[in-house]
Amino acid sequence: MNGAQALIATLSDCGVDVCFANPGTSEMQLVAALDEQPGMQAILGLFEGVVTGAADGYGRMTDKPAATLLHLGPGLGNGLANLHNARRACTPVVNIVGDHATDHLQYDAPLTSDIVGVARPMSDWIRTSTSPDDLAAAGAEAAAAALSYPGQVATLIAPADHAWTDGAQPAHPLRGTDVPRADAQTVEEAAAALRQNGSAVFLGGRALRADALQQAGRIAAATGARLICETFTARLQRGAGRVTVERLPYFGEMAAEFLEGLSSLVFVGAEPPVSFFAYPGRPSWLSPEGATLVKLAGARQDAVHALRALADALDAPDKPARVQETVLPPIGTGSLDAQSIGAVLAKLMPDGAIVSDEAATAGLAIFPMTQGARQHDWLMLTGGSIGQGLPLSVGAAIACPDRKVIALQADGSAMYTVQALWTMAREDLDVTTVIINNGSYAILNVELARVGVTNPGAKALSLLDLTRPAIDWVSVSEGMGVPAVKADTVEGFQDALGEALSARGPRVVEAVIPAGV
Amino acid sequence: MNGAQALIATLSDCGVDVCFANPGTSEMQLVAALDEQPGMQAILGLFEGVVTGAADGYGRMTDKPAATLLHLGPGLGNGLANLHNARRACTPVVNIVGDHATDHLQYDAPLTSDIVGVARPMSDWIRTSTSPDDLAAAGAEAAAAALSYPGQVATLIAPADHAWTDGAQPAHPLRGTDVPRADAQTVEEAAAALRQNGSAVFLGGRALRADALQQAGRIAAATGARLICETFTARLQRGAGRVTVERLPYFGEMAAEFLEGLSSLVFVGAEPPVSFFAYPGRPSWLSPEGATLVKLAGARQDAVHALRALADALDAPDKPARVQETVLPPIGTGSLDAQSIGAVLAKLMPDGAIVSDEAATAGLAIFPMTQGARQHDWLMLTGGSIGQGLPLSVGAAIACPDRKVIALQADGSAMYTVQALWTMAREDLDVTTVIINNGSYAILNVELARVGVTNPGAKALSLLDLTRPAIDWVSVSEGMGVPAVKADTVEGFQDALGEALSARGPRVVEAVIPAGV
Repeated sequence: MNGAQALIATLSDCGVDVCFANPGTSEMQLVAALDEQPGMQAILGLFEGVVTGAADGYGRMTDKPAATLLHLGPGLGNGLANLHNARRACTPVVNIVGDHATDHLQYDAPLTSDIVGVARPMSDWIRTSTSPDDLAAAGAEAAAAALSYPGQVATLIAPADHAWTDGAQPAHPLRGTDVPRADAQTVEEAAAALRQNGSAVFLGGRALRADALQQAGRIAAATGARLICETFTARLQRGAGRVTVERLPYFGEMAAEFLEGLSSLVFVGAEPPVSFFAYPGRPSWLSPEGATLVKLAGARQDAVHALRALADALDAPDKPARVQETVLPPIGTGSLDAQSIGAVLAKLMPDGAIVSDEAATAGLAIFPMTQGARQHDWLMLTGGSIGQGLPLSVGAAIACPDRKVIALQADGSAMYTVQALWTMAREDLDVTTVIINNGSYAILNVELARVGVTNPGAKALSLLDLTRPAIDWVSVSEGMGVPAVKADTVEGFQDALGEALSARGPRVVEAVIPAGV
Repeated sequence: MNGAQALIATLSDCGVDVCFANPGTSEMQLVAALDEQPGMQAILGLFEGVVTGAADGYGRMTDKPAATLLHLGPGLGNGLANLHNARRACTPVVNIVGDHATDHLQYDAPLTSDIVGVARPMSDWIRTSTSPDDLAAAGAEAAAAALSYPGQVATLIAPADHAWTDGAQPAHPLRGTDVPRADAQTVEEAAAALRQNGSAVFLGGRALRADALQQAGRIAAATGARLICETFTARLQRGAGRVTVERLPYFGEMAAEFLEGLSSLVFVGAEPPVSFFAYPGRPSWLSPEGATLVKLAGARQDAVHALRALADALDAPDKPARVQETVLPPIGTGSLDAQSIGAVLAKLMPDGAIVSDEAATAGLAIFPMTQGARQHDWLMLTGGSIGQGLPLSVGAAIACPDRKVIALQADGSAMYTVQALWTMAREDLDVTTVIINNGSYAILNVELARVGVTNPGAKALSLLDLTRPAIDWVSVSEGMGVPAVKADTVEGFQDALGEALSARGPRVVEAVIPAGV
């Protein structure tokens, strides 16, 4: 057995059963080894950002790592942006990055680069295999590192000669470490803080899963505390029948206003909120001055335990407050906008849907419209690096083949990793992508004014415009094998989305809304 | 004047007159500053790999840097692969990467990352502005660093508050340093080496421009030495009437055979060749054992001076040898293949064409067919990181608006930075893209066997296949605003290419050739 075979067998033993891949010559032995591991799916992405974003989506939905297979430093570089998002989501991911054979590195061949250097900014854990025998052991360590609660980005660098040399053996999976818990004293501090008037529990990460929210709802029942979630969550379980949360607004001054008057905040799975960007003369820190802030559990501490302990400390009832009722907003007619997209979506999305939201400005409007829809998971752009949405949908669909995935995708962002559509077609993934085409980087038109540019000229505006030429998303999608239709009225959109959601397999609905909205 | 205005004015004073941009919120002040600098073009790319690859193409054709404008660490990450290629090509590039305002960094907002860490592996020079006043000075240093012969990748990190704060002034351009020259003793050694039988001059980088090749031709006239060029050149000036070179084969064993029997090699603008990848049991080093190797001038020494000094030391005649005659290979009929694409191209390419070659396996066959065509520049994949070809064409077309650019593009590679088609449409660039569609990563089918995988299974082969689904390039191109036609016969291809080349503006010709060729 060569090193590659030992590594893939080890990863399989560690529970890794999907490999998203964009390999090159230095990974050919690993490709061959995938063949021999029947339990490991191999999914091709035609760009590395698709591969790493898919691993993120898979990890968010399964809480276990997929492997990625990437080609040397530049291939890893192409995957960095979505690894940044995955890392911010605390998603478990195991990257396998091929390198030249160790003897070949001295020659500085054209594709040679500092792979560890490329990996470092977006990895929680990095290791280079030191021998053919070590490659499998390094793989077991990578899987364990990725699984460190709630998840980490682990990057393993595999020299080609370690992969192709015979005499290796699989390594044993490593036992995971216990998840750190909030201590009793902090629970008491949090309980005291929530007994004040004007308190809130601020939730992020794993605290936004249904089990954790159930406990948060008990706390609200006991104290009347508001339940607030971070603006961009990795995976929020919501919909009718679930404990519901208020979402922190995106723009700093709206967020500060939203938090105004709170005398205490208790944080679970999240840090105190800060503005996404800085603006001249405006504060970055958003919590009200003088409020009591208690960090009960950070992202890497057990969220369910912390919330249950807090609820118990408050003698909270079993029955949660803030349970969401079914609310389906009325659907208008005529020309389409973000609100009407949200209303149609709320009506049509099936039970158990998974929504990948990279709809930017439109997404901010769609989100509240779907609060009382059937139960679903809502995945967001955790790291702010656009190009996450379509790949994330690929990974979620591989993770949950029996659930409908809905990608809400802004037009500008969709272009970054548009190659994901091809993988949806190849794997016949049950993903309905809604491309919300407003013909611009609309968010940047807002931001331009917010940083103090009040009278932008034609050249500046041209850098935010996507209408010259307009992108024909139906044509682009069909070129990559995904059937597509365009809609620019509420009625047309409702028909198109209904048809897409009732079919099985990939579909694109291009939803045209007015420019700059 | 704020820091952004001072920076852009400084870059303009330094001769930077194009900015390829994919900005975000933290770069909005820089976007506004571009407005006020009438001498600076601003070109939008819908993905950062397009932006950096375009800067590479522009730099190769003008020998001066374009600026890029990139959004924080993840945006730079998306541009790394083509910066890797640019760095391997020794192209001058000035990257401007926005960062959060300095006070905002402490809050670790979602888009925060180690930007210097992301920049380091693919930059020759990195600097972070230290104050609003320093931003312009750092820009002048970046431009000078980029221009260090023959060119460098310089990355300047611009915190948002340095850009938006008033009271800054433009900085003066810095004087360039002299280009290092080969010393007289090494020239004598090289002359002695070439007086042996079985000698060769091995050329790369700037030694492949027409003026340098003219000197190389004199050396060949005096000594009979072979003139060999590296496999992947940044910019080779060739065609009828120019001194011609033999190209080193791609595969190591073919390259070693090609060099066999040489008793001496003199290197100008290149290092001794090594194989692109390592393979089990095969050597990486390609020069014949026992041959005399003289490094006359490295990539960062004056190539024309070195070759002229060597020619003079050899008392070479003024008239060069190895002047290429016009050769137009016969054009067949029937089904299309790489050779017939090459023959049609040789016949139709206009004088002064610029060819961006990322045609992978097909490109290896097309290259020799065009050796005796009208004079042209041939740009290749210097760093081996695919996704260079279409962006490079964008940059070359911006650099040389009066010359026809021809992108020879493999289908697999074209997908990596397919967004470049949109920029061709927006800027109405005179680029004819030939997508050579063989429905596979053909090179990897070859490499799989070469690393020792003799009996790949269905899963392995699926990772190299692009037919399920087949990409409809006409549909993808037209969706991004570039008119396109498909051809699968020699006659059809000749008509389509002729029409595309005789029109002005962007065109795509999808050339379908048999699978795996």
